[in-house]
Amino acid sequence: MAEVILLNGGSSSGKSGIVRCLQAVLPDPWLALGTDTLVEAMPASNAGIEFAPDGQVIVGPEFRRLEAAWIEGIAAMARAGARVIVDEVFLGGADSQKRWQKALGELRVLWVGVRCDSAVAAGREVARGDRVIGMAASQAEMVHRGMVYDLEVDTTRTESLECARTIAAQVS
Amino acid sequence: MAEVILLNGGSSSGKSGIVRCLQAVLPDPWLALGTDTLVEAMPASNAGIEFAPDGQVIVGPEFRRLEAAWIEGIAAMARAGARVIVDEVFLGGADSQKRWQKALGELRVLWVGVRCDSAVAAGREVARGDRVIGMAASQAEMVHRGMVYDLEVDTTRTESLECARTIAAQVS
Amino acid sequence: MAEVILLNGGSSSGKSGIVRCLQAVLPDPWLALGTDTLVEAMPASNAGIEFAPDGQVIVGPEFRRLEAAWIEGIAAMARAGARVIVDEVFLGGADSQKRWQKALGELRVLWVGVRCDSAVAAGREVARGDRVIGMAASQAEMVHRGMVYDLEVDTTRTESLECARTIAAQVS
Amino acid sequence: MAEVILLNGGSSSGKSGIVRCLQAVLPDPWLALGTDTLVEAMPASNAGIEFAPDGQVIVGPEFRRLEAAWIEGIAAMARAGARVIVDEVFLGGADSQKRWQKALGELRVLWVGVRCDSAVAAGREVARGDRVIGMAASQAEMVHRGMVYDLEVDTTRTESLECARTIAAQVS
Repeated sequence: MAEVILLNGGSSSGKSGIVRCLQAVLPDPWLALGTDTLVEAMPASNAGIEFAPDGQVIVGPEFRRLEAAWIEGIAAMARAGARVIVDEVFLGGADSQKRWQKALGELRVLWVGVRCDSAVAAGREVARGDRVIGMAASQAEMVHRGMVYDLEVDTTRTESLECARTIAAQVS
Repeated sequence: MAEVILLNGGSSSGKSGIVRCLQAVLPDPWLALGTDTLVEAMPASNAGIEFAPDGQVIVGPEFRRLEAAWIEGIAAMARAGARVIVDEVFLGGADSQKRWQKALGELRVLWVGVRCDSAVAAGREVARGDRVIGMAASQAEMVHRGMVYDLEVDTTRTESLECARTIAAQVS
Repeated sequence: MAEVILLNGGSSSGKSGIVRCLQAVLPDPWLALGTDTLVEAMPASNAGIEFAPDGQVIVGPEFRRLEAAWIEGIAAMARAGARVIVDEVFLGGADSQKRWQKALGELRVLWVGVRCDSAVAAGREVARGDRVIGMAASQAEMVHRGMVYDLEVDTTRTESLECARTIAAQVS
Repeated sequence: MAEVILLNGGSSSGKSGIVRCLQAVLPDPWLALGTDTLVEAMPASNAGIEFAPDGQVIVGPEFRRLEAAWIEGIAAMARAGARVIVDEVFLGGADSQKRWQKALGELRVLWVGVRCDSAVAAGREVARGDRVIGMAASQAEMVHRGMVYDLEVDTTRTESLECARTIAAQVS
């Protein structure tokens, strides 16, 4: 049985909705932590992450250093007995996956790719109203490059709750 | 050309997303105001509105009195030249529509019904994570009883942006 | 007895906290609407308002046109029987006040200036973490230029709840 | 030099404001994580934490189990090189401190008590408008019982930024 569920997908691909549904359908309580939690925990300025007006996300060495420690911490939480759902945006594709794999080590991880048609994700980005326009389109394909998943879901025409049920069925 | 767009739909039917997309696709700036704005403007307690744990929304005379003044104010904004998109949850169905029609009087209003399959809306309510569970299911049909629309959209299988484009095409 | 309470003060001077306390201490339910509500109701882009990186707020004719209609609407709500608390940032000082006075006409208005030492407001802006740094300092004095108030409160060393009680005592 | 800053104080005592100011005044980037992050990461229901209408917070064994893993994870982040500011509400007073001390082990921790007069904190709770009323008063004294601090700050009459500067002076 998986100890960590790691979801990777572009901005506005529907990860957060799936995570909340997973927490609702999984019988045990799972912690939900992810990129958004880390960005929120960073200082408002000088954190080494920048959101360009065109939707590009530029990440510097200072961010990477704190992120590495963050990843170690998540792994430690799972080793200490917490079930953890991580939702991530692997800007570095397969390199990002390797960083997580190294930290998670022997832990049983369910790797999930969350796909969404680029144009549909871009439309949902407009509908959300709280994201820099352009992130969805620029990340939709990029984050999946070279990735290896146990399972992929596609939110283009499938509801979050249904995706969550598909994932949950692989957990136990 | 419409001076007011009034969207009516149950909780988690996708109204807010459509409103944000409408603001993005309509060439002129439109104000977006609705039930959520009014509830937010009310005092935290003793406002005459109650959200029961099962998703029922109970509205008392004090709320109705303030709401009546709110509706008059929205109508006055439109008469003063602002284009306004209102998103509403007509718990009283056709009676709610009559209250708005009376206040809006001679203004040109585009009445839009926002439908969503009850089970799908209930799933999206779980995915949002910030709503009392049960509201979506209990309101999905109720709010449309006896209503007359110029246009209906259904978010069950249509994206917010596409719904917004359909509505925008009727505005000008 | 006042039908409208209009609070004017710079960003991070503590207006919102006072408004919530006023809603709690006033025996009747009052609607709370203000600049933040209006900005929130505007489209995400092309609304004619811009927040410069140094904290300057630049407002164009399109914003002013919608704002004029918004003000008419607030006045109409008050005339229709709603008690309304408006919290505003009068970037135009006395000119802004005249616009409101004209729209509010015969309504009984309690004009309240919310002052806060510029350095203290700037510190609270940092503590809030969700505002463009520089707004508090640039607005602290500017918004009060040429204004005439019924009452002034100063949040530099007085709590929101105490300020609210002082204001509420003048309402009835 | 401290590797972890641990702030403990009751609800509405001003911890979050101090944390944001600390992140702004400390020369290096520090991660800010705390009770609110953990509660946010928990499932919306069945997480073993309950907020009673009178402001009491009831925490069950399921919450404590996940919290223990969370604490281990924070310690691991600090060991991996991240500087971390933790803001906590020690409902269990000295027992809570012991749990953290055990997990943090050899790490250099600056223990900070954040005090606020109970009536003032209760007033600020009303001004915030997003908290269950009663939490501030019930926690103001309780969380400090039996605690040992390196430093105490009192927000009753001292601004967040000034408290942050006092703390920052002890860090380096």
